[in-house]
Amino acid sequence: MREISKQTGAQALIGYVIQIDDGHARVVLDIDERHLNRNDGLHGGIAATLLDAACGYNASLAADGETLMPVTTVSMTVNYISRVASGRVTGTAWVTGGGRKIVFVNAELVAEDGSVIATATGTFKRLSQR
Amino acid sequence: MREISKQTGAQALIGYVIQIDDGHARVVLDIDERHLNRNDGLHGGIAATLLDAACGYNASLAADGETLMPVTTVSMTVNYISRVASGRVTGTAWVTGGGRKIVFVNAELVAEDGSVIATATGTFKRLSQR
Amino acid sequence: MREISKQTGAQALIGYVIQIDDGHARVVLDIDERHLNRNDGLHGGIAATLLDAACGYNASLAADGETLMPVTTVSMTVNYISRVASGRVTGTAWVTGGGRKIVFVNAELVAEDGSVIATATGTFKRLSQR
Amino acid sequence: MREISKQTGAQALIGYVIQIDDGHARVVLDIDERHLNRNDGLHGGIAATLLDAACGYNASLAADGETLMPVTTVSMTVNYISRVASGRVTGTAWVTGGGRKIVFVNAELVAEDGSVIATATGTFKRLSQR
Repeated sequence: MREISKQTGAQALIGYVIQIDDGHARVVLDIDERHLNRNDGLHGGIAATLLDAACGYNASLAADGETLMPVTTVSMTVNYISRVASGRVTGTAWVTGGGRKIVFVNAELVAEDGSVIATATGTFKRLSQR
Repeated sequence: MREISKQTGAQALIGYVIQIDDGHARVVLDIDERHLNRNDGLHGGIAATLLDAACGYNASLAADGETLMPVTTVSMTVNYISRVASGRVTGTAWVTGGGRKIVFVNAELVAEDGSVIATATGTFKRLSQR
Repeated sequence: MREISKQTGAQALIGYVIQIDDGHARVVLDIDERHLNRNDGLHGGIAATLLDAACGYNASLAADGETLMPVTTVSMTVNYISRVASGRVTGTAWVTGGGRKIVFVNAELVAEDGSVIATATGTFKRLSQR
Repeated sequence: MREISKQTGAQALIGYVIQIDDGHARVVLDIDERHLNRNDGLHGGIAATLLDAACGYNASLAADGETLMPVTTVSMTVNYISRVASGRVTGTAWVTGGGRKIVFVNAELVAEDGSVIATATGTFKRLSQR
């Protein structure tokens, strides 16, 4: 398993970790009070960040399961299903389709007890190789 | 004008400020390297956080333009229109409709030069008064 | 299996059939030229109609798997993954969560050859019993 | 003003009219019982069809305000704000951004009395010139 942490400013700030295993990426965050909203639950924006990262890394890996190709989010919809206030949340994502330029990805954020916190569906654009 | 900063863990972490003026809320963030993604632009998750906050505070204010009623995000879609890497971004939002329980809100995140960075459309649920 | 056709004006107009089996609803449409768009593929609006029906009927059934409780769509996002121009398309949907008032549903529209045409994620509101 | 009706199978079936004026497209539908859902309101799928058409035609016109360039919907989110059961509904849309390949469009469906029935936000892909 390959683990990526603090790779970008936003990742270091929020503190989530990317775990890549067998061609799939997973996002892990241990919730603390820095991640909470006005109702003392996980902030919707932080949940969106984790789901965006889960989608983005899996879209990146879609070409060959190994190389992280540059992609950028075109649009993303998040459904906020249940509340979580502590513990570890894990985001997983799977590519549902796409072509030469666009990749479609669905994702799910799950709490330690298995309850689904949020789901996401996103469209990503492959950037020209740099 | 009323200014809210560091009210929640997530707000303190990311560093955005809420400005409430004349019944409307605005979200302001001065981008630094802690907010950037793998392509050195504003992270999509941070942009989503700002748009969620802009929508949420305006949904909160919708009842009477003054009281911040508790609301929670049901779903939110973000379109990522252009890239920004530095400077100040400002998020504004406006209620498009709703009833006793659900509030519909649209939002826009704009860079200093006036270019639209991202737009959002969200549905929020009014929580029972506490 | 219970089959519903021409129950509403829109259903009769477009010609899709609802099949309810074992507590789950499925939407079936045999594409003809009345369903095509400017590029001679299935019209995005017709695909959205099928996905909305698939989500809605499954949200309706969510209470006890049998009674069709009244629900209304709050918001729906459709991702258009691939093109289809003829044959039968089938829409399935599954509830991902929800509470007393809101139901979250995901859906998928699949062509005869198994390719995914479109996916959807929606939020529905339970209406008061009539 | 240029008026387009029955151009495609789906348009003839549902009966909406496209009006193009001064570089902008508008979609008009006179609701009758063929457009209604299980709750005797305008079917969400028909509303989505009108909003998709409004977005698509304006994305098509975005290049020069006159030529209808081929585009295809990548994703679309619809928020269902209020109910309408009869009369004329009008869909308008405006491009919010985009580049060489992707166009972002927002839309609104309004009833005769001015009330907003639904809003939409979509991403469209320009197809290679045929």
